[in-house]
Amino acid sequence: MEKTFTSKTSGGNYFEDFTIGQVLTHATPRTVTEGDVALYTALYGPRFALQSSDEFARACGYPRAPLDDMLTFHMVFGKTVPDISINAVANLGYADCKFLKPVFPGDTLSAVSEVIGLKQNSSGKNGNVFVRTTGTNQHGDVVLSYVRWVMVNKKGPASPAPDTVIPELPEAVAADDLVVPQGLDFSTYDSTLAGSDYYWDDYEVGEKINHVDAMTVEAADHMMATRLYQNTAKVHFNLHMMKDGRLGERIVYGGHVISLARGLSYNGLGNAPLIAAINAGRHVNPCIAGDTVYAWTEVLDKAELAGEDHVGALRVRLVATKDHEPADHAYKDADGKYLPSVLLDLDLWLLLPRR
Amino acid sequence: MEKTFTSKTSGGNYFEDFTIGQVLTHATPRTVTEGDVALYTALYGPRFALQSSDEFARACGYPRAPLDDMLTFHMVFGKTVPDISINAVANLGYADCKFLKPVFPGDTLSAVSEVIGLKQNSSGKNGNVFVRTTGTNQHGDVVLSYVRWVMVNKKGPASPAPDTVIPELPEAVAADDLVVPQGLDFSTYDSTLAGSDYYWDDYEVGEKINHVDAMTVEAADHMMATRLYQNTAKVHFNLHMMKDGRLGERIVYGGHVISLARGLSYNGLGNAPLIAAINAGRHVNPCIAGDTVYAWTEVLDKAELAGEDHVGALRVRLVATKDHEPADHAYKDADGKYLPSVLLDLDLWLLLPRR
Amino acid sequence: MEKTFTSKTSGGNYFEDFTIGQVLTHATPRTVTEGDVALYTALYGPRFALQSSDEFARACGYPRAPLDDMLTFHMVFGKTVPDISINAVANLGYADCKFLKPVFPGDTLSAVSEVIGLKQNSSGKNGNVFVRTTGTNQHGDVVLSYVRWVMVNKKGPASPAPDTVIPELPEAVAADDLVVPQGLDFSTYDSTLAGSDYYWDDYEVGEKINHVDAMTVEAADHMMATRLYQNTAKVHFNLHMMKDGRLGERIVYGGHVISLARGLSYNGLGNAPLIAAINAGRHVNPCIAGDTVYAWTEVLDKAELAGEDHVGALRVRLVATKDHEPADHAYKDADGKYLPSVLLDLDLWLLLPRR
Repeated sequence: MEKTFTSKTSGGNYFEDFTIGQVLTHATPRTVTEGDVALYTALYGPRFALQSSDEFARACGYPRAPLDDMLTFHMVFGKTVPDISINAVANLGYADCKFLKPVFPGDTLSAVSEVIGLKQNSSGKNGNVFVRTTGTNQHGDVVLSYVRWVMVNKKGPASPAPDTVIPELPEAVAADDLVVPQGLDFSTYDSTLAGSDYYWDDYEVGEKINHVDAMTVEAADHMMATRLYQNTAKVHFNLHMMKDGRLGERIVYGGHVISLARGLSYNGLGNAPLIAAINAGRHVNPCIAGDTVYAWTEVLDKAELAGEDHVGALRVRLVATKDHEPADHAYKDADGKYLPSVLLDLDLWLLLPRR
Repeated sequence: MEKTFTSKTSGGNYFEDFTIGQVLTHATPRTVTEGDVALYTALYGPRFALQSSDEFARACGYPRAPLDDMLTFHMVFGKTVPDISINAVANLGYADCKFLKPVFPGDTLSAVSEVIGLKQNSSGKNGNVFVRTTGTNQHGDVVLSYVRWVMVNKKGPASPAPDTVIPELPEAVAADDLVVPQGLDFSTYDSTLAGSDYYWDDYEVGEKINHVDAMTVEAADHMMATRLYQNTAKVHFNLHMMKDGRLGERIVYGGHVISLARGLSYNGLGNAPLIAAINAGRHVNPCIAGDTVYAWTEVLDKAELAGEDHVGALRVRLVATKDHEPADHAYKDADGKYLPSVLLDLDLWLLLPRR
Repeated sequence: MEKTFTSKTSGGNYFEDFTIGQVLTHATPRTVTEGDVALYTALYGPRFALQSSDEFARACGYPRAPLDDMLTFHMVFGKTVPDISINAVANLGYADCKFLKPVFPGDTLSAVSEVIGLKQNSSGKNGNVFVRTTGTNQHGDVVLSYVRWVMVNKKGPASPAPDTVIPELPEAVAADDLVVPQGLDFSTYDSTLAGSDYYWDDYEVGEKINHVDAMTVEAADHMMATRLYQNTAKVHFNLHMMKDGRLGERIVYGGHVISLARGLSYNGLGNAPLIAAINAGRHVNPCIAGDTVYAWTEVLDKAELAGEDHVGALRVRLVATKDHEPADHAYKDADGKYLPSVLLDLDLWLLLPRR
C-alpha cells in the first residue's frame, strides 16, 4: 500500500509557535576539535598568534590555543537555526553578545534559547522573535550569551497576534560588563611573534583602518563552513531552489562574512585576537559566491578594564564591503542609507595588550 | 640517452588478472583522525548527536564519539580502488555489507579483498568481478565487511574466459546477523539532544519520509572528499579527460552521494545514527557538480534484536534524487525503470533506540 | 571628525627595505595538527603509507606518522610571505632546501629569514632579494632550511642601489649533506602496504616515469590550501583585482602545484615518501583554477648514504604540466625554452628503502 509522506521531519517553528519565556533546548551537542580549527584556518586564513600557536597561547596564560571566538559563535549559532530561524524572512540583528569563557579543542558545546520578545508585524504575515541564546560547555559553564532577533513567517495570517513584548537591549555592552578570560596574561606579550607593533595605547578614537587585503568567496567554501557549523538554512545550500530567485544563487551565511572580515582585520589589528563582545551587527546586503570581500575598521571607543594592567578594550566598527576597495570608507550615503557595496556593519569590543 | 617511460606505475588490474580465491592486500593503511571527522562534517553536515558529541556518545556507552559509519566505509573502499576498479566500466552493486565494530579517531584502517566471483560478459570485452572486502583496525578486528561487484575491462578480447563463478549473496542481511556495537547503551537515550521525537517503535513499514532539505554539489567538495578517502578513480578528478565526454564533467564518487543522502536523512531519522548493514545499493544515474541532491526514505522492514531491549533495527530504502524535490516519491516508472532524476537506491539496516 | 586611514597596516617590505645580514622574525607561529594533516590529504590525495598510518610509521622507527615534508615547507614558507614577497614581481627560485627533522602533529613551527643577497635590476624599478629561511620547532630545532630569491619592487626608482651581493648557492645539495631523519628504520619496510614493488635499487639514472594520474584544480581548493598555510599573497585570493589582468583569474600558489605533483608521483614512486632536499625549483608558467595537473619524473642521480644500509637517495626532476598528458615528456623546446604546458620544474632528493 502506497502511503503519502509522514510528518516525522521538522519544518521548524513559525511565529505562532513561539511564546514569551519558552525555552528551546537545541539538538546535536558538538565536540569541537583540532579538525574544526584547521578548517577554520583554511576557510578564513586568520593569523592571530594566540589562536595559531599553543606555545604563544601558553605564554599568554592559556593551557593551549583557544578557538577563535567566531568559531565558537558559529557552532552555537548553527544549533539554533533549525528551531529559531528556519522559517525566517530576515535576520534582523544581534545585541549584548558576550564571550565569557575560552573554548578549547575537546570541549563539547550545547545551546539553549529563551524567547524574550515577540512582535507581530502590521502585515499580519510575520513577526519578530527575540531570543537570548546561551552556549554551554561540558562543565555547564556558559561560554557565550547573545540576543538575536529575526523576522519569522506565520503559518497563517488568521492566527491571533501575541502581546507585544520588546526586550530592553543595550546599545552596546558596557565596558564594565566585559569579561577578560580567566588567567589571560598579556604581561609578557610578544608583539614580534604576533606581528603587529600597535598596542591598545596606540589606537585613537575616530581612527580608521583599511585592512588592505581581500578574499573572494567560493560556493564550496561557504557551504563547507556552514555545514561545519551544522547550520541548516536552506538558502545557503540549495541552488536548485535559489537559481530562479532574485540573486540566482545561494546566499552566503552572514557569519561567514564576519569571519572573513575578522581574518582580514589582522592586518591593522594584529594584537586584537579576542572578541569580548558583539554590541550590534547587521548583514546589510547579501553576499554570494564570486564576491570579493574587503574590510575596514573605525575605532569607536576605548576602555580601561578594572584590575587589568595589561589588557585594554577597543570598541570598533568592522565594515565589510564587496567588490569595492574601501579606501573611501564605503559605509552610508548622505541619507544614512547603507551603500550597495556594504555587506556587514559590526560593532565589537576587542581585547588588546597594553604597553 | 633519452629513454621512454618505464613501467613502474600501476595501471591496476584487468579482468584477466583476477582469479577465484585471489587475495589482494590493499596499499596505504590509514590512521583516521579528528581532522577526518571535521572534514566529513564540513562536507556533508551530518547532525546525528552520537557522532557529533563525545559527551552524548559516552552517555550511549562509547568511550568517545565514533566515526560516521559511511566515513569508515569510504576509507576502506578508497583503498580498494587502485586494485579492483581502476579499469572498471561500471560499479554494479554492493551486498552483505556489515558494520561490525565502531571506529574511533586514532584507529588505523587496512583493507583486504578476496575475489569470490568472476563472469566474463558475452561481448568478450569485459567481465564482472565480485570481491569480499574486509576493513580491519590496528588490533586486527574486522570493522567492516562487504561484497562489491564491478564490470572490469579485459586487456585483450583474445584472452580466455575464466570459469564462471557467481557467489551466492543474500538479498538482504538477515536481522539475526546484524551486529549491535559492543557496549551500545540506549537505555538513557536523550531524544531532545538528539533532536527527534521518533523512536524505533514509531516507524511503520511502508511509511515514506521526504527529508525536505537539499544540498548542491560543488566540484571542490566532491574532489576533496574523494581525495580524503585516497580513492584514485580518474573519472572523479580529471576534467581535461572528462570534458569532451558525455557528461562534460567529472563524475562524483557514488559514496559522496550516499553520505549526502545520509546527512539529509537526519531530518526525519534523527534517532538513526548507526548503519548496521548495507543490504544493496545502486548508483542509478551519474551525479556531477552543480546537481542539487534531495533524499527520501521508505521503511521496508522492522526487526527486534535478540537480547536488545533498547535497540531495534529498521530496514529502509534511501533514495537520492537530483534537481527534483521528492514530494512525488520519484523512483521508478511503470516499467520498473528508474526515473532520470534518481541518483541512488540504497537498502540499509539502521539501528534506533526503542521506547 | 572624519579622519583618513591610518598606517597601522603592513604593506610589506620593498627592495630598499632589505639590507645584507638583516634578520626577519616572521609573525604567527603555528601549531600543526591532525586537522592540518587531514586537510592536506583532502587537498592533494597523497598515498604514501608513512604519512598515512601511525602504525606504518612506527614500524619505520617514528613515534607516529610525520607530516608530509611539503606541508612543513608550506607552513614555514607561508609565514615569510608578508615580510619577503608581498611586493614581489616574481618568485625566481629555491636552492639548498634541506629537511632536517621530522615534524609531528602538535609541533609548533616558527620561521626566521636572513637576507643573504641583493641585486638591483638594470631597470632601476626592482631588485632581487635572496633570503635564507629557517623553520624551527618548539624545541628550537631547525626542521627546514632553504634559500629563496624573489624580484621585489622598489618604492621609488630614485632610491640608491645597494652593493650587489649574490650568494654562492650549490647547484644541488651534495649527497653527503643529506640528512636521514633520526631513528628512521627501513630494515623491515613493508612494500605491500606501501603499495610499490620498487626500491631504491630498482631505479636507473635517466629513467623517466609518467605518473599517469591527473588532478584538476578548483578555486576553492587552492585558496583553502593557501589560507591554511597563512600565506597572504593577494594574487591567490582577490578575483576582483585579478579578473581584469592577463589571466583573468587568481594565480594558484606555486607550492600547491608542487604538492599536487608530489601526490601524483606516488604512482611510480610509492616508496619515496620523504624529501631530503629541494635542490632547485621553478614555477615555469602560472596555474589557474580549471587547469588539470599531470606530472612526470626523470631520475637524475642516485646516492648511497654514509652509514645507511637500508636507505638510499634518488635525485629526480619532477615536472608538472597542465592540460597535457605527459607521455611525450613535455619539458623544453629545441632552444631550451620551457613548453607552454609546463608548470613546474623541481629538482629533489628523495629517500627510499633499499633492498
